[in-house]
Amino acid sequence: MSGGIAQSFLRRSKVLMRQTCNRGIAHHKKAFYSTKAMEEVTEISQSKMFGGFNRRFRHQSSSCGCPMNFTIFFPPQLDSKKVPVLYWLSGLTCTDENFIQKSGAQRVAAIEGVALVAPDTSPRGLHIEGESESWDFGVVTTGAGFYVNATAEKWKNWRMYEYVTEELPKLLTSNFPQLDTSTSSIFGHSMGGHGALTIFLKNPLRYKSVSAFAPICNPVSCPWGTKAFIGYLGENRMLWEEYDATALVKRYKGPPTNILIDQGDKDIYHSKQLLPENFVEAVKEANGPISTTLRIQSGYDHSYFFISSFIEDHVSHHVKALSI
Amino acid sequence: MSGGIAQSFLRRSKVLMRQTCNRGIAHHKKAFYSTKAMEEVTEISQSKMFGGFNRRFRHQSSSCGCPMNFTIFFPPQLDSKKVPVLYWLSGLTCTDENFIQKSGAQRVAAIEGVALVAPDTSPRGLHIEGESESWDFGVVTTGAGFYVNATAEKWKNWRMYEYVTEELPKLLTSNFPQLDTSTSSIFGHSMGGHGALTIFLKNPLRYKSVSAFAPICNPVSCPWGTKAFIGYLGENRMLWEEYDATALVKRYKGPPTNILIDQGDKDIYHSKQLLPENFVEAVKEANGPISTTLRIQSGYDHSYFFISSFIEDHVSHHVKALSI
Repeated sequence: MSGGIAQSFLRRSKVLMRQTCNRGIAHHKKAFYSTKAMEEVTEISQSKMFGGFNRRFRHQSSSCGCPMNFTIFFPPQLDSKKVPVLYWLSGLTCTDENFIQKSGAQRVAAIEGVALVAPDTSPRGLHIEGESESWDFGVVTTGAGFYVNATAEKWKNWRMYEYVTEELPKLLTSNFPQLDTSTSSIFGHSMGGHGALTIFLKNPLRYKSVSAFAPICNPVSCPWGTKAFIGYLGENRMLWEEYDATALVKRYKGPPTNILIDQGDKDIYHSKQLLPENFVEAVKEANGPISTTLRIQSGYDHSYFFISSFIEDHVSHHVKALSI
Repeated sequence: MSGGIAQSFLRRSKVLMRQTCNRGIAHHKKAFYSTKAMEEVTEISQSKMFGGFNRRFRHQSSSCGCPMNFTIFFPPQLDSKKVPVLYWLSGLTCTDENFIQKSGAQRVAAIEGVALVAPDTSPRGLHIEGESESWDFGVVTTGAGFYVNATAEKWKNWRMYEYVTEELPKLLTSNFPQLDTSTSSIFGHSMGGHGALTIFLKNPLRYKSVSAFAPICNPVSCPWGTKAFIGYLGENRMLWEEYDATALVKRYKGPPTNILIDQGDKDIYHSKQLLPENFVEAVKEANGPISTTLRIQSGYDHSYFFISSFIEDHVSHHVKALSI
């Protein structure tokens, strides 16, 4: 640890100790901050888990023009080395906390030595007219950012694509020297599965692998997707296809990769909103460098109980690609 | 499965299928109902997890005089045999859902073949004056039942001790023939750790083993406990000791057993409210059939992140005693 980091950590630790003791939250012994960090992110909370730490941060987002929260699980291995980064994108109604509280992914991440990064799902607190009228569009309780860069003037702050692909990785690189942000993969659930698939397909050299739980695979063909895209992107369907995994996979030119998708057969959104079969068909048609493993899981629904049942397989899928 | 059960299941399954499909919840293929059951418990929801099922039920409690919810995790093994029961008692602010959503215990229970039963923490919906004035006493948002039988007239419905030790086991026996309710153990967290310890110590032949995460070990000597006991039990301190693990362990006459307790050293409630050292001291003084293993876990707080980190050790502790 550099002297600069150490000194900033010592200063920071006093602030943190006060913050965390007030909340009864364990204080992490290790330093994660460059001096620059102190201006950029504020820790909200931290809790030790499986020998590592869940740490929640808040910062002012330039992409979304509002404060945004994100949570990182730091595995114990970063005491001795840099660790790769596995991004998780959550679905409708979620914040950065659902995955951290319910998935159980930290157990496997702590064994494998990978950091988990869970951003929020939407800008919040902007009070745009109508932002909370729909549970599947807008924000307040639902976080329906859909991981796009909105073009509609009214929704100009909805730039979750830029936030996840540009702003957040830069923020992590400058603030958390223990994270090897050049070695990262991405996965997610439902709307976040759509986000993970489209972000990977548009940036094949930026992520080593992708997987998803019950992803929205063909948003231009389902009610959730068309509602979101009309609102955020307007009527230009060409633009919609820039955020549709089933369209993007047909023109993918990146390195060969296998995409793991788990889908519960008791998920009521399967046939109307998620359409994984359309994605698999497109992969076959493309006959390109992508293969996909779609596992239909008997008896499972759309919940985090489903995610936690198979999270170990997904983390292992990424660990292989990240060559840990 | 008996014909009667099978027929009732077929009728029941149609109702369930409608209920669950409306909520997008997987329908369990197996029958858990005796015909009697259909009048006694109503299923609220179910989700498949690790090959088993989390199933939430509602019933009218005779002990508490109000509807009560509880959740059972049925492991996959009950397809072929009866499974023992491990009761979990939750802490302040919790319902029957926190443990089921956050602990990750189902992963281990599904491997070991034990059912997890999580009752609610308090009567609800009775609208007793003052029931929601305190976060650590009464009910509405906090569920501060403290697992006692209240003697104060105002709190006469607060009979969580009777509910957990008598009513719920009988309800399980009559409704879920796949559960071996004669082979059970008990554990819990904080206020629920107090509940687990006191219930075990008062009923040594009813439970095979007990363990706790950050339990309130000596409620007569801490602010949470004295506030609850004055309210529910009045000024008679002799009565208080009937619900104090540190007092009860001194007169325990049951079979030899080891009590596992995990306590985080960054838990802000440790020294003022939980007092595990008082319990360990009492065990030593008693020099009786009880031994205790108190593990002070470095860096851990009072949260479910702490519980999930060590839940496997606790389930294993009980699996040994249950001779699975």
